[in-house]
Amino acid sequence: MILTVTLNTALDITYRVGSLRPHATHRVSEVTERPGGKGLNVAGVLAALGHDVTVTGFAGGGTGRIVRDRLAATPGLTDALVPTGGATRRTIAVVDERTGDTTRLDEPGPAIAPPEWSAFQEIYEDLLGTASALALCGSLPPGVPVGAYAGLIRTARAAAVPVLLDTSGEPLRRGVAARPDIVKPNGDALAELTGAHEPLRATRAARRRGAHAVVASLGAQGLLAATPEGTWRATPPGRGHGDPAGADDSVTAALLAGVVEHRPWPERLAHAVALAAATVHAPAAGEFDRGAYEELLRRVAVTGEVSAA
Amino acid sequence: MILTVTLNTALDITYRVGSLRPHATHRVSEVTERPGGKGLNVAGVLAALGHDVTVTGFAGGGTGRIVRDRLAATPGLTDALVPTGGATRRTIAVVDERTGDTTRLDEPGPAIAPPEWSAFQEIYEDLLGTASALALCGSLPPGVPVGAYAGLIRTARAAAVPVLLDTSGEPLRRGVAARPDIVKPNGDALAELTGAHEPLRATRAARRRGAHAVVASLGAQGLLAATPEGTWRATPPGRGHGDPAGADDSVTAALLAGVVEHRPWPERLAHAVALAAATVHAPAAGEFDRGAYEELLRRVAVTGEVSAA
Repeated sequence: MILTVTLNTALDITYRVGSLRPHATHRVSEVTERPGGKGLNVAGVLAALGHDVTVTGFAGGGTGRIVRDRLAATPGLTDALVPTGGATRRTIAVVDERTGDTTRLDEPGPAIAPPEWSAFQEIYEDLLGTASALALCGSLPPGVPVGAYAGLIRTARAAAVPVLLDTSGEPLRRGVAARPDIVKPNGDALAELTGAHEPLRATRAARRRGAHAVVASLGAQGLLAATPEGTWRATPPGRGHGDPAGADDSVTAALLAGVVEHRPWPERLAHAVALAAATVHAPAAGEFDRGAYEELLRRVAVTGEVSAA
Repeated sequence: MILTVTLNTALDITYRVGSLRPHATHRVSEVTERPGGKGLNVAGVLAALGHDVTVTGFAGGGTGRIVRDRLAATPGLTDALVPTGGATRRTIAVVDERTGDTTRLDEPGPAIAPPEWSAFQEIYEDLLGTASALALCGSLPPGVPVGAYAGLIRTARAAAVPVLLDTSGEPLRRGVAARPDIVKPNGDALAELTGAHEPLRATRAARRRGAHAVVASLGAQGLLAATPEGTWRATPPGRGHGDPAGADDSVTAALLAGVVEHRPWPERLAHAVALAAATVHAPAAGEFDRGAYEELLRRVAVTGEVSAA
């Protein structure tokens, strides 16, 4: 199975309102809710692609129960979340029907107690025994040490499980030093990590810091990958519209699928760009349009060079 | 016990944010959540006053479980809510820390299926057997007939349980015709019911439509009551600040307590105004400041005349 880790899971709620006006009372015309946090989104996409996927991380309280009920109803997905005393955070996205704008309200989420963190690490090590690939996704909740991802990467490497890291800031900096197989930063996170603003320079600098392969997500410009086998750019045929966060999680899902299916890098990148673009066309984060995915896959341009090594 | 009916229960969530700006992403600095819907607020106040109180109405889904978990933790309160297939609605109040303004987002709530409405009516009739007073509170959810309160009032009167109705619009108009013991409209609902904008005239007109006693809540001006024993005004000593909805629910709680304690009307009204004002001073809706309540009780002015009848 493929394992995804989401230490800061969420219940993602979307409201549609006629027009959002501060200080007014709004009748919400439509409510949608789904499990959230980057690793759960990645797992949802992998399950929809037909992969056997297990999720771990933390969930607690009434919101955690709603998240777990939804996960239980997802075919192909196994819930190995660890209970935590606090309630899983909610994120609220308020879509203004007049302007199309989205206003977000993100709860802080619960602090993780030291015994909960220890319990997680035990379950994580057990799960690695049957994992064929692993993604560590998103921000760290309060109470989890800032070097957490570095430790989890070392454990995964000791178990010979290929590991992808998708985070930012100090957890990314420390994680990269633990030599993950793939890091997938966006342009901002990459610039913060390396101090370089030119993507190719920054991607190569991130490799020198320890990552075996670096896949930078550059929004509408697609992906730039620096790997031991070569350097490639993968560009979508048009500009997408929709949820860029959801598109990023589809990139992670496609890269993990590429690892377990032993696809060469250019093929992994083509799938990642097509799946991300198909996600952009879908109505809800983490979902994708199968027809668009297949159609886009034929039209993604991958250019680059194979390393001499 | 005192029974309160909340057909449209809610999970009331309050967020504090630095400054609410449409189209921005906000980190919520503080989250509070509590059972909501007017009848649950009334029950919370009654339980805090030391009364034995039972709540019924509908609850469902993950949000319904959170509401019921909270109710189970309230001493003196018995949960007799009826399960419904849809999820209990959330209400979100976003408090802007810069301006103090509150922006509200109210979910629509689930539709009640005909078998659920039948199940509720059976449980309601059973509960009337041990009820000493009853409040029917708030709006009707989709699926419940507009004449629902009128029917519930007739059942209560047949069981000789004193009944207070606190709603508005067509459910109020139909309910009043079923001759409830007390109706407690605010100024707007009373004007809509009677067509009269002068409170004394409107209050007396509402009595002629069928209510035995009418207690109009006039905000900072306090209460105006037209009853078979006389007409009174009860005025708070100062102007309150805070949650007027919570204050209204405290008025209902005090009036019910007055019924079961067989207090004369002027005393009931003094308690209602003092409790409402003490609620206004408290940080969260439905809670009140005991010290303020006792102190205010000595300072409420009740003026009026006893009927010759």
